[in-house]
Amino acid sequence: MPESDAGGVRSVQRAVDLLALFDAEHPSRSVRELVDATGLPKTTVVRLVHTLEQCGLLWSRGDGHLVPGTGLLRWAELAGRTWRLPEEALRRLAELSEASGGETVSVYVRQRNTRVCVARHEGTRILRHVVRVGAEMPLWSGAASHVLLSRSDHADVAAVASRAPGDEWAERLWEHTRKAAADGIAVSHGEREPGVSGVAAPVFAASGSLTAAVALGGPTTRFTDDVVAGFTPALLDTARALTTLDCIGGTA
Amino acid sequence: MPESDAGGVRSVQRAVDLLALFDAEHPSRSVRELVDATGLPKTTVVRLVHTLEQCGLLWSRGDGHLVPGTGLLRWAELAGRTWRLPEEALRRLAELSEASGGETVSVYVRQRNTRVCVARHEGTRILRHVVRVGAEMPLWSGAASHVLLSRSDHADVAAVASRAPGDEWAERLWEHTRKAAADGIAVSHGEREPGVSGVAAPVFAASGSLTAAVALGGPTTRFTDDVVAGFTPALLDTARALTTLDCIGGTA
Repeated sequence: MPESDAGGVRSVQRAVDLLALFDAEHPSRSVRELVDATGLPKTTVVRLVHTLEQCGLLWSRGDGHLVPGTGLLRWAELAGRTWRLPEEALRRLAELSEASGGETVSVYVRQRNTRVCVARHEGTRILRHVVRVGAEMPLWSGAASHVLLSRSDHADVAAVASRAPGDEWAERLWEHTRKAAADGIAVSHGEREPGVSGVAAPVFAASGSLTAAVALGGPTTRFTDDVVAGFTPALLDTARALTTLDCIGGTA
Repeated sequence: MPESDAGGVRSVQRAVDLLALFDAEHPSRSVRELVDATGLPKTTVVRLVHTLEQCGLLWSRGDGHLVPGTGLLRWAELAGRTWRLPEEALRRLAELSEASGGETVSVYVRQRNTRVCVARHEGTRILRHVVRVGAEMPLWSGAASHVLLSRSDHADVAAVASRAPGDEWAERLWEHTRKAAADGIAVSHGEREPGVSGVAAPVFAASGSLTAAVALGGPTTRFTDDVVAGFTPALLDTARALTTLDCIGGTA
């Protein structure tokens, strides 16, 4: 890849990283803060900020602070249009939650080396699995990850596992994904977080490709073998319904 | 600016332009479509797509089509947090609409050389001014533009006017902005679109800087001098209320 190309990719990544510095705790930022947070030279940050302002992705409040720009309003609409599930699909998630006795139902897709929650129906129990739409999670752990990787080859799974802490993950993850492929379902207990369990099943597009995992999540104490066996048919049913609706990432 | 810097800015702009090709009519795109729509070499598009996928801004549906990525879900949240007005402000917009006899009320901010609608209360009349939140409009015409440029210098206004079709705009726009500065309000009839009128007033931040314009919009036939004089006090009142709330672009 020629030098200039590498620079281009890097600039886009830097611009996205700069925007990622704005969150609930930091709704606005000064250039000084951005320099400190990125460790980039001030001239680079000033240039990036200027570009992002021109693209509508940053906005100067006029008090020396920058906020996310008005261009994001259009992107928000785009995100909603692409990722908001149709009513029928949301109803199926709600029914699965009810069938499980009130556990949280989530839909995950793979975005490169993470999995992202794109839809969920929050459970009704006092102790419940809470996950925000848009939340990114590691792809090297959890039942939904095993399902999302169930058609990946060894090199791909190894690359994902290399992001996990410790050397033991490569083999463990490969075994998990093979089991998910063979069983058409995955169960994990306390893998990503102690005391949290998940059961996930694959969702396919009309083209046949694996697009998502639909998962039930809750406390390990409630996810006994008997209980899991009890709601497995409903989970598989929901996964098949989402496959039929073919609605992940918008309709084709 | 060194060559590599220019390339970086260009890459970010290209990435944003590529995402802008996804809309209601084109919820998904193939690489081929993106090459045709941008006129860029295929290698450049493939590289950009790869970068955008890594950043979470594009997602491969698995059927050869790309859709806006899951990263936009986080950006949508960010946009909402920054630009959604507090209840009190939205109530003031609704009250102004009612005081005007049911015309549409919009709030615009300047984003570089455009004005963007960041909030609105749609009117109740059968013939009404309809504007979407996030919609970009030219900054060289309309009452809201005159207000947004009322503190700009001649060079800035000339630069904005240079984007208008025809040479007569530079002087006309400068006069309009001076009048808006002197009057603290602007009125326009059929400037952006024949038959559409607007009346706008400035909103300031606590820091004293001009942040937005709040505007009433509707058909010219209804915006007679008497009617405009009638709702002007309510409009100025709303502009002052938004200034006190200091809520444009999030709270400081």
